[in-house]
Amino acid sequence: MSEQGSYVTTGEAYERDTQYIEDRIVADPAAVRNLPAPPPSKVGSLGFGLAPGAEAWPVEPGRYRLVAAPACPWANRTLIVRRLLGLEDVISLGRPGPVHDARSWTFDLDPDGRDPVLGTERLQENYFARFPDYPRGITVPAIVDVPSGGVVTNDYPQITLDFSTQWREFHRPGAPNLLPEEHLEDMWPLMTRIFTEVNNGVYRCGFAGDQASYDAAYERLWTALDWLEERLATRRYLLGDTITEADVRLFTTLARFDPVYHGHFKTNRNKLAEMEHLWGYARDLFQTPGFGDTVDFVQIKQHYYETHTDINPTRIVPDGPELGNWLDPHDRERLGGSPFGDGTPPGPVPAGERVLAGHNPLVDRE
Amino acid sequence: MSEQGSYVTTGEAYERDTQYIEDRIVADPAAVRNLPAPPPSKVGSLGFGLAPGAEAWPVEPGRYRLVAAPACPWANRTLIVRRLLGLEDVISLGRPGPVHDARSWTFDLDPDGRDPVLGTERLQENYFARFPDYPRGITVPAIVDVPSGGVVTNDYPQITLDFSTQWREFHRPGAPNLLPEEHLEDMWPLMTRIFTEVNNGVYRCGFAGDQASYDAAYERLWTALDWLEERLATRRYLLGDTITEADVRLFTTLARFDPVYHGHFKTNRNKLAEMEHLWGYARDLFQTPGFGDTVDFVQIKQHYYETHTDINPTRIVPDGPELGNWLDPHDRERLGGSPFGDGTPPGPVPAGERVLAGHNPLVDRE
Repeated sequence: MSEQGSYVTTGEAYERDTQYIEDRIVADPAAVRNLPAPPPSKVGSLGFGLAPGAEAWPVEPGRYRLVAAPACPWANRTLIVRRLLGLEDVISLGRPGPVHDARSWTFDLDPDGRDPVLGTERLQENYFARFPDYPRGITVPAIVDVPSGGVVTNDYPQITLDFSTQWREFHRPGAPNLLPEEHLEDMWPLMTRIFTEVNNGVYRCGFAGDQASYDAAYERLWTALDWLEERLATRRYLLGDTITEADVRLFTTLARFDPVYHGHFKTNRNKLAEMEHLWGYARDLFQTPGFGDTVDFVQIKQHYYETHTDINPTRIVPDGPELGNWLDPHDRERLGGSPFGDGTPPGPVPAGERVLAGHNPLVDRE
Repeated sequence: MSEQGSYVTTGEAYERDTQYIEDRIVADPAAVRNLPAPPPSKVGSLGFGLAPGAEAWPVEPGRYRLVAAPACPWANRTLIVRRLLGLEDVISLGRPGPVHDARSWTFDLDPDGRDPVLGTERLQENYFARFPDYPRGITVPAIVDVPSGGVVTNDYPQITLDFSTQWREFHRPGAPNLLPEEHLEDMWPLMTRIFTEVNNGVYRCGFAGDQASYDAAYERLWTALDWLEERLATRRYLLGDTITEADVRLFTTLARFDPVYHGHFKTNRNKLAEMEHLWGYARDLFQTPGFGDTVDFVQIKQHYYETHTDINPTRIVPDGPELGNWLDPHDRERLGGSPFGDGTPPGPVPAGERVLAGHNPLVDRE
């Protein structure tokens, strides 16, 4: 996702714009068009059709490009799920640099500053190719239709669900089921609470426009983190013995907690590293193929500290914290379970997509 | 001390103005006037006379008022030493609130917003009573001559030394010797390194005007903290078995480290609470009468986060970190020694000077 220009409104609590391009890429467009529209949801839906006005696009290997800045927690979800499911060969990846300007995320890290497949310098061009007067923020993750160069969807809560359900034909052998039938009923309220209280809760702290809004946001966030700490004391993963979509969604916030949110967003009751179970859980996931190998701590820190000039006017990026402790033993195996259940871990990260040395202790250990 | 108006100069490293009013209050003014002028020092001097142009004032119980905002680390030193030595009855205390404006520290927490003894609203008035066109920052600690209302000195490195050496006649029975003869040779280089690398080093991180200045400042700070961590692994106090002036000077920075410097000044390689020996040492001092009972964590956080609007434009004060851990057992007795040596701890804090409930876990425990 992206937050353009100014982030804090003096005197006001932070409200996230949750309007997105709700087109979907699906295995059977005709069938999906006939399903009922989904109920309002901040976390996406399963088994429903299209939102009013949205279109269905066909699953097609090689046709779409996922544009996902590693810095962004919402984009990071798609990087993880794409890798867990082994969709790298059928959905290509464009990676904007960490620091977007007021207009757009940009492909500034690519040769000549252009995405090598889309040929664009700014993701905004791909939004405009579809909607010439697109009025909202240019956000990642976005999926672009390569032939037309236009954005298909930036509806991040739905994108990862559709990776799991619509692209099944192209999953790698051994891909985990991130949406196990027996846990779906618990998963939706859980993911909703994680979204409103944690994923978005950290932003509510950081972009509070006055002390009272901040105080209330801090209280809400820590209530939720204490609840998760307790939940994870006896469960290896959020929903039991194997990883699910819910774990992906919590993980990307936890990975940014000590490096960014603790200081930059003032979520500083304690560090993640000071919470026994959440920290063990976060390290367990980090050390699981498909999770930690998508995390670029350097880009993460640059993104937040350089972009949000209204809370960090100097744009100076902290040199801390030390991150080697993400590789410390987590001892979560004592709780049983295994990340992939009957499946297998994904193989190595494709060469062109690897996080650079110095950006992640996993890479530095190799 | 106070930093007025703007703190960060874009593109430049932070340089502290170290020019002060160098008058001194001494036991024997005539004798001090005949001693040679002190060599340049950032930490004050012993056994020398007056700096060029400075005057000697006589020690006199009840004549002087120490103006010291509890928020300020340099003022906090004077609060500690005054209490350790039992000078509360002979040198009265004025306490500005935590948030000064661009002109001055103010007595905004006193009834009618005036210091009850000096009658002034702003400490600036007391500076102007002495020097009508005083050109530099209005800093604390400052000692004011009550009869004339004029500032005598704001030379904080010397003030605490003179409390120890010049006011000896009025020390309480059992007052510790904070400048033990046998450690003086080691103490000066130690205090100098602590000042340049730690006390001022955290400011150099926080007020760096560009990334390169910050990176260099961070490196210097952590080199010094690692050195102290190692030193304190085998010594109960900086100079061995009893507290000295050097401990006072390090303590006031450590007390502010996790609540302020870690996030606000980006000194975030790790928390103080993640360094075994420094954290044990800091708690040991905190729990020693005269140290922790002078610390007002609420005012400390308000001071930094509300005053430095160029690094915290929202002026929002973080609700964290949790501070109850300052009371955790420190187990430093295993290293031997005792804080007061042959002396005794100071008695309770005078009623009018106690830190408020909610501002300090020691008070909250009572």
